[in-house]
Amino acid sequence: MNGFYHLGELSTSTVERLAQRALEFRRGVQPVRFAGRGLGLFFLSPSLRTQASFQRAAAKLGLDLVQLQGGGNGVWQLELADGAVMNGTSVEHVREAAAVLGRFVDVLAIRAFSGGQDLALDLSDPIVNGFRRFAGVPIVNMESALWHPCQALADWTTLDMLGVGRRAKFVLTWANHPKPLPHAVPNSTLAMALQRGMDVVLARPDGYDLHPHAMAEAKRLATESGGRLTVTNDRNAVEGAAVVYAKSWGSLEAWGDLAKEQRMRASLANWCVDGELMRRAGPSARFMHCLPVRRNVVVKDEVLDGPTSVVIDQAENRLHAQTALLERLFLELETQSKARKSSMELEEVRP
Amino acid sequence: MNGFYHLGELSTSTVERLAQRALEFRRGVQPVRFAGRGLGLFFLSPSLRTQASFQRAAAKLGLDLVQLQGGGNGVWQLELADGAVMNGTSVEHVREAAAVLGRFVDVLAIRAFSGGQDLALDLSDPIVNGFRRFAGVPIVNMESALWHPCQALADWTTLDMLGVGRRAKFVLTWANHPKPLPHAVPNSTLAMALQRGMDVVLARPDGYDLHPHAMAEAKRLATESGGRLTVTNDRNAVEGAAVVYAKSWGSLEAWGDLAKEQRMRASLANWCVDGELMRRAGPSARFMHCLPVRRNVVVKDEVLDGPTSVVIDQAENRLHAQTALLERLFLELETQSKARKSSMELEEVRP
Amino acid sequence: MNGFYHLGELSTSTVERLAQRALEFRRGVQPVRFAGRGLGLFFLSPSLRTQASFQRAAAKLGLDLVQLQGGGNGVWQLELADGAVMNGTSVEHVREAAAVLGRFVDVLAIRAFSGGQDLALDLSDPIVNGFRRFAGVPIVNMESALWHPCQALADWTTLDMLGVGRRAKFVLTWANHPKPLPHAVPNSTLAMALQRGMDVVLARPDGYDLHPHAMAEAKRLATESGGRLTVTNDRNAVEGAAVVYAKSWGSLEAWGDLAKEQRMRASLANWCVDGELMRRAGPSARFMHCLPVRRNVVVKDEVLDGPTSVVIDQAENRLHAQTALLERLFLELETQSKARKSSMELEEVRP
Repeated sequence: MNGFYHLGELSTSTVERLAQRALEFRRGVQPVRFAGRGLGLFFLSPSLRTQASFQRAAAKLGLDLVQLQGGGNGVWQLELADGAVMNGTSVEHVREAAAVLGRFVDVLAIRAFSGGQDLALDLSDPIVNGFRRFAGVPIVNMESALWHPCQALADWTTLDMLGVGRRAKFVLTWANHPKPLPHAVPNSTLAMALQRGMDVVLARPDGYDLHPHAMAEAKRLATESGGRLTVTNDRNAVEGAAVVYAKSWGSLEAWGDLAKEQRMRASLANWCVDGELMRRAGPSARFMHCLPVRRNVVVKDEVLDGPTSVVIDQAENRLHAQTALLERLFLELETQSKARKSSMELEEVRP
Repeated sequence: MNGFYHLGELSTSTVERLAQRALEFRRGVQPVRFAGRGLGLFFLSPSLRTQASFQRAAAKLGLDLVQLQGGGNGVWQLELADGAVMNGTSVEHVREAAAVLGRFVDVLAIRAFSGGQDLALDLSDPIVNGFRRFAGVPIVNMESALWHPCQALADWTTLDMLGVGRRAKFVLTWANHPKPLPHAVPNSTLAMALQRGMDVVLARPDGYDLHPHAMAEAKRLATESGGRLTVTNDRNAVEGAAVVYAKSWGSLEAWGDLAKEQRMRASLANWCVDGELMRRAGPSARFMHCLPVRRNVVVKDEVLDGPTSVVIDQAENRLHAQTALLERLFLELETQSKARKSSMELEEVRP
Repeated sequence: MNGFYHLGELSTSTVERLAQRALEFRRGVQPVRFAGRGLGLFFLSPSLRTQASFQRAAAKLGLDLVQLQGGGNGVWQLELADGAVMNGTSVEHVREAAAVLGRFVDVLAIRAFSGGQDLALDLSDPIVNGFRRFAGVPIVNMESALWHPCQALADWTTLDMLGVGRRAKFVLTWANHPKPLPHAVPNSTLAMALQRGMDVVLARPDGYDLHPHAMAEAKRLATESGGRLTVTNDRNAVEGAAVVYAKSWGSLEAWGDLAKEQRMRASLANWCVDGELMRRAGPSARFMHCLPVRRNVVVKDEVLDGPTSVVIDQAENRLHAQTALLERLFLELETQSKARKSSMELEEVRP
């Protein structure tokens, strides 16, 4: 593992081992501790669960923690473009920021949402990819413009915890929201469910497709796992679902055009998960959401506060999944250091 | 102790033990360390002393620290109302924020001042009470709309340190200020002094009463302790005081009405503690204030920089008092875990 | 060492020992650990390298870390003036802020840039000097209005690492920039190179002199070390340089007058380090800059990404130099505590 950018880059057996390890941590097993190793967290976008759970995971692993907040009174605004003449508002290029932070820690975790204005730029995932190019250390993606793999790993863990079958029906349903949100979570959720081999329904209104690049990656994973994908504009296509996973996202047809987005949503307020939808799904259906969630817009109180909701367990699993991920990353770093050391010793022995 | 919301909820003997323990820490005694336990700090309002002293206390206790800042580039804006349709600016409901953070740490400390606009809302102490309802772990109040119990515990410690008698005269005096400030500190100071059984004078201009709810709580504590309370509009009622404790707060009659507040204060600039007032109080009087303090508005330089001021020792005691408080909370959690464990073992033994 | 305000306050042999210790850390030596000691970091200005490297250094030394951000949602705005009537926007005086934080930690590090409006105020270095006056504990300057000694110590370390001779030619060249920047770095770089005894060229356009106070300090250090200083307005005066160190700063003639500054810079865009300048300097010249740097304004990509640039190593040395500095400060505190303890024991033994 050279960092962690997208769950689908890991073999399914690796994901399975990480999820099982996460559930051991949930039951109280203590992780390996890595004295003298450093983890950096750099937030260029807001965060509650991710900040808190990475801080705690770092402490559980005994890591030296370095944490930075971008913007405001935190760190300098970053320039991303190659060859830029930096006479505007950006103070530091990601080339230097990444390379320097890579000297201070052993693993660097970054959060940087899509800007939501320039689709081509967002599709290049410029900040997290900038850090991957220039940091010189493994990068953990704490949610980029395109992927939120820590959420996907926690969700996989939650499905294991709940005993949801590998071929069970998984409905990812678009939901209404006052704002057009990034695609990182729906991209990652879809790919995760298909990597598990599930019978996935993607229910979204017309105009709310995910990007062809993300769909192609999801289909690649489905082919490997034997998973199935059905795309529909029928929000009621939930019968027999083991999981109803709600998420809102913006339309690619209205990227950066708020007025158009609002016109498109004018008739979509009924895309809100309510008790009736959960009853339609059936008695074993669970409600999932990555949080934060807009109550009574994305999901009704009756669902979120009812017995089918597992969102708090799902959020708790962020901590355990990330602890498992970091434990593995740092174990691999230790192995590499030892290998380097013994090859150096071998060279010293040579005449 | 299920958390720490208001000093008056603790028995006086518990407060006494905490203050004595705080003074042991002040003399260099090291607290118990709690490896593998987590403390969360969540600041929705600004802080210098509280942030710094809780961070240091957590380190002294060996706790895993999780720290979040609300607003700005930190965490999402919280919704507080039950049943809210969240299609506005609030991104996450306190129900989820509290429940999730409660999964990541063992004790959660929250700071959230009153908004100063809607008195009924402020009196419900919505944010800290939201966390108390939904977090599932003990909540420590780092200053809510109504109470600042960590300040009160530090002040009790300071009075013990100074050897101030339990029946001595304690003057809480209103002071001028460019802004209408929350009532958490005066509510807590008044209640603390009366819980000690002191001879308390509350000196404030007409129109600057504390809320009847806080006054009732103060009187309840006075009845238990034998303390006495006199309310006056005479700022010179300080003769024989062991302590002159200055604090500014807004008028309940002008809550959310800045123009009215400013009219009320037009003639109150003389409510500033000066050398003359301290001389009138007498030779053994000490000056106290919770800080931050507006120099030459709340108190003159001659007092703050003079020998009667104990504000820096008082602030230092925040660290020691909070270390004592957290030590006790975590000791109790350890006891509960052990009790749970042995009852589980007993059940396993049964046929 | 009573804190660390300006590199030139240290004897050259002390600086040499710190730089050698920094290079040991760079090679993997572990520093002494100080259990139960506390370091505070207080940022009133933005930071990436400094924040990250001080956090990591604190962890490596086993220190309890307290970290505060000024402004925004962090801590209160500070008043600096003696005798101020604080009825404006400043909430807390540096006297209290410093004294209180000094009770919570053993060493306090402060970052506070110059305001760039009031030259007399900036020359008094009011915030860091306020903390030095009132904190009661050693203060580390993480960049004040006048000095950036941690950068200077890291730069000395970098010159040692590169084997740059003590009498080699060191060119500090002004560079163009969209904003007038503070003088802390050029003041410190000039003084550092002259304290080493180097053959220093300060190349800047007319109107961009450093302040006479900083020049006098630089010359004092040159006299002690045998260093030489040449000031020129010829940006090409780099022949034979071992180091070309670029830095932009504002004109003292236009302090607080942005329009004048922009007029002065209209014809100065050619003050950008490019490949031609580095070739003119000669084959052994290295490019240095403290970062963050404006690409293609201060320095061309061809230089920054080329083999002569050492800026990332230079930034890495911030971590090692600060670890060495803090190790020494805390070792001295331990020595003082022991001395105090044994003198107390002696007194107890006396009849």
